[in-house]
Amino acid sequence: MTMRSQHQSYTLADIADRFGCLLNGSSDILVNTVGTLENGTPNAISFLANPLYRKQLSSTRAGAVVISSDEAARCPVPTLVSENAYAAYARIADFLCPQNAPQPGVHTTAVVVEGSEIPKSCQIEANVVVGEGSHLGDGVVIGPGCLIGTNVRIGKGSRLVGHVTVLDNVVIGKRALIHPGAVLGSDGFGFALDNGRWIKVPQIGNVIIGDDVEIGANTTIDRGTIDDTIIENGVKLDNQIQIAHNVQVGEHTVIAGLTGVAGSTKIGKCCVIGGSVGIIGHLNIDDEVKINACSLITKSLKGPGTYSGGLPAEEVSRWRKQVVFFRKLAKRKSKKKTED
Amino acid sequence: MTMRSQHQSYTLADIADRFGCLLNGSSDILVNTVGTLENGTPNAISFLANPLYRKQLSSTRAGAVVISSDEAARCPVPTLVSENAYAAYARIADFLCPQNAPQPGVHTTAVVVEGSEIPKSCQIEANVVVGEGSHLGDGVVIGPGCLIGTNVRIGKGSRLVGHVTVLDNVVIGKRALIHPGAVLGSDGFGFALDNGRWIKVPQIGNVIIGDDVEIGANTTIDRGTIDDTIIENGVKLDNQIQIAHNVQVGEHTVIAGLTGVAGSTKIGKCCVIGGSVGIIGHLNIDDEVKINACSLITKSLKGPGTYSGGLPAEEVSRWRKQVVFFRKLAKRKSKKKTED
Amino acid sequence: MTMRSQHQSYTLADIADRFGCLLNGSSDILVNTVGTLENGTPNAISFLANPLYRKQLSSTRAGAVVISSDEAARCPVPTLVSENAYAAYARIADFLCPQNAPQPGVHTTAVVVEGSEIPKSCQIEANVVVGEGSHLGDGVVIGPGCLIGTNVRIGKGSRLVGHVTVLDNVVIGKRALIHPGAVLGSDGFGFALDNGRWIKVPQIGNVIIGDDVEIGANTTIDRGTIDDTIIENGVKLDNQIQIAHNVQVGEHTVIAGLTGVAGSTKIGKCCVIGGSVGIIGHLNIDDEVKINACSLITKSLKGPGTYSGGLPAEEVSRWRKQVVFFRKLAKRKSKKKTED
Repeated sequence: MTMRSQHQSYTLADIADRFGCLLNGSSDILVNTVGTLENGTPNAISFLANPLYRKQLSSTRAGAVVISSDEAARCPVPTLVSENAYAAYARIADFLCPQNAPQPGVHTTAVVVEGSEIPKSCQIEANVVVGEGSHLGDGVVIGPGCLIGTNVRIGKGSRLVGHVTVLDNVVIGKRALIHPGAVLGSDGFGFALDNGRWIKVPQIGNVIIGDDVEIGANTTIDRGTIDDTIIENGVKLDNQIQIAHNVQVGEHTVIAGLTGVAGSTKIGKCCVIGGSVGIIGHLNIDDEVKINACSLITKSLKGPGTYSGGLPAEEVSRWRKQVVFFRKLAKRKSKKKTED
Repeated sequence: MTMRSQHQSYTLADIADRFGCLLNGSSDILVNTVGTLENGTPNAISFLANPLYRKQLSSTRAGAVVISSDEAARCPVPTLVSENAYAAYARIADFLCPQNAPQPGVHTTAVVVEGSEIPKSCQIEANVVVGEGSHLGDGVVIGPGCLIGTNVRIGKGSRLVGHVTVLDNVVIGKRALIHPGAVLGSDGFGFALDNGRWIKVPQIGNVIIGDDVEIGANTTIDRGTIDDTIIENGVKLDNQIQIAHNVQVGEHTVIAGLTGVAGSTKIGKCCVIGGSVGIIGHLNIDDEVKINACSLITKSLKGPGTYSGGLPAEEVSRWRKQVVFFRKLAKRKSKKKTED
Repeated sequence: MTMRSQHQSYTLADIADRFGCLLNGSSDILVNTVGTLENGTPNAISFLANPLYRKQLSSTRAGAVVISSDEAARCPVPTLVSENAYAAYARIADFLCPQNAPQPGVHTTAVVVEGSEIPKSCQIEANVVVGEGSHLGDGVVIGPGCLIGTNVRIGKGSRLVGHVTVLDNVVIGKRALIHPGAVLGSDGFGFALDNGRWIKVPQIGNVIIGDDVEIGANTTIDRGTIDDTIIENGVKLDNQIQIAHNVQVGEHTVIAGLTGVAGSTKIGKCCVIGGSVGIIGHLNIDDEVKINACSLITKSLKGPGTYSGGLPAEEVSRWRKQVVFFRKLAKRKSKKKTED
């Protein structure tokens, strides 16, 4: 389950060269880690991407700062100038503190049912269960306590950190990263009312996950009722998201934590959806739609565009007056209208 | 952990006969699976229940469509006419793609503590832990990685899919279906403030689950503080629902994902509660109340009736203007009132 | 996994003496458990703390009631009078129904990697995995199915109930209580956009949990991006809370279920935050702020004070009219303003 470690030192010149940055300052300073502007030490690379943190620049002790050209002049330490400082920082951080390589092998406590296909390059950790007919790609890491059902496919280079549940037939693409507690392929929530009793509608569709998808801790993705629930390439899902049956999430869309997407809604490509958003079922969200946190989405949305909902919090006595006033006013006007 | 499979073929005449539908069309067409109107193949039974999908009827290639009498005329393929098409479809789908029967036995890696009672008809899968004094009914399936505490009761025919946690003393009725990551019997959230410190109020009540209850992935149901948290017969809970201590959910109520019910609230029978709803504590929700998605419930609700709350999302600049306008207006009116 | 049990009987005089209450009534009544006012039996201690339950006082059959001095006169059974009845009750309940002591030992199915430090006083249950270099304090209980990564520290007296995931390097203080499904140290949600693709920003910070912290079922706490996510002493987190990377939660703050706190937000000490609240990132919430359930927090909040947001639910046709009216009015006024 060990995730990242750091060892080696590199000169700033080497870093600048590898990641296409323009270096201002001493080229032979050695760095071997990353740090924030506030707490970074002289052996660390830091970055400035969010203007909120600009005020920390003047006092930073980091070895160098990855920064855009228009901010670089104010930086008291060496700079690695990049047009996209945040992306350059992300690549440098992954280089200095790399993900540990898989340690091939199957732990003695893992229960791997006959008829599954697990290449020798895979790392299968303690207490993993892999069901019949499942196929893993090269270099797949299945962390401790994961359950892999029958006939599951997991593409090469994917990592399930631990305690992940992947139920029967689910297909996961390459280079997935799935965090603990995530559940893929649980039954969708479908019942038919019959004389006051709910009859279960069998959920026999599947969950199909593309390549380069990240799925957060305790996120749940239900299998489709008949057709499949689909998460396309490059989608990033935060923690505790609920994706209902037959939802489709388009390529490179990101969704923040605690958001729920109800059944059969289609979300386009490159959307950015905030946390605690609720999207009701059977809607179409266009490509490149942004939705701010805690919004309730009750209608299909045209993109590109940004949407927001709800009444942000206020001091409670003021809030109470507003709600009361709002209701009275709406009542009065609506009466008036009726009288007209 | 294998869930459903399909094998056998049946004639439409046979299906119509078994499920009380009126067949229009060729009686000897063979079907062995189900499909959507859009993607169903000639060996599949499809259905029309949601008018949103009516437009797909004319081009369907399914073998037959379960449908209401007033929609049947437009259907280009054989129809199985039923007064309640969705319920009839649900029963036919369960017949064609049945839940796999339990495969009795206790996996060698399961840890079953002495003093628990597990009939031979039960299926106990890999890495299951069953504590002292727990009793399972006939044909219970405990999927891989489930934890069953001490003195737990689980009624016959219940299935815990995998990775389910059932803590001490919890009682589960017959034919329950519980999805991965669900936690039953965790401590309620109760603390007494004493000189600025929170003292834990011991949570020694229980969780009692009736018959025919379904509980979604990563849903949590806390034990009562002193008395019990109660989920009555036929309740269906979706994923990631939080049921706090001493809540009661009445028979045949359904609740969608990410909804939270705070402590000691009583929800009546046959309610339909949408996703991401928040219900505060110590309320009474009458029988047959419907609550739309993302509503905040701060008062007891009379039923039958439908309730909704919140401001649905809009384009962000329009939303911002509305919020500002709303606050100003409320302030002005409230000032005026004070001046009067 | 057995949690609490009760055995011994005590006289009311003994209880009053041990917990500093004033006893009114027969001193030699024996009690051995707790009960509600409604259902408590003569061998049980009950309490009155929430005025909602005052009406149950007159008919209680409990052996004694822990109560404030101004309520005591109405009580038909013996009273244990305390200035802080709820806190006194909490202590008495913990005394009568104590948490079971750890049963030292390592279960044969536990996988404890060489190089971890586990004192003999610890209880390590079935199917636990403990990674290299992890250190547990005296008397730590690790319930069944927990995953402890590498280099984790867990302070003495802490309990992980079962199915808890603690990833690499995470530090947990003394006397923590962590419920099933909680995930500590999952990656924060950080991606840099680069030509329409999301590049992962490595999450190499840590999670630091103070002493006397309780963490609810299926709650997730992400590791910091570079610096750490910090949960200070005495914090109580309910179920299904999402704490994003680099959040700080101050001492003795309590947060109810399904609440999400986005990245880098700092919450002060002694705050009380309701359920299903959404707090966006990079905010400061002052000490002693209260936030009511289902509020959306988009700005930093000054304390002490109470905040609320959203439009509580109403009967749906009334709600619909209000929303329509509100939008029209805002549009008209905003037009008027433009015309002026």
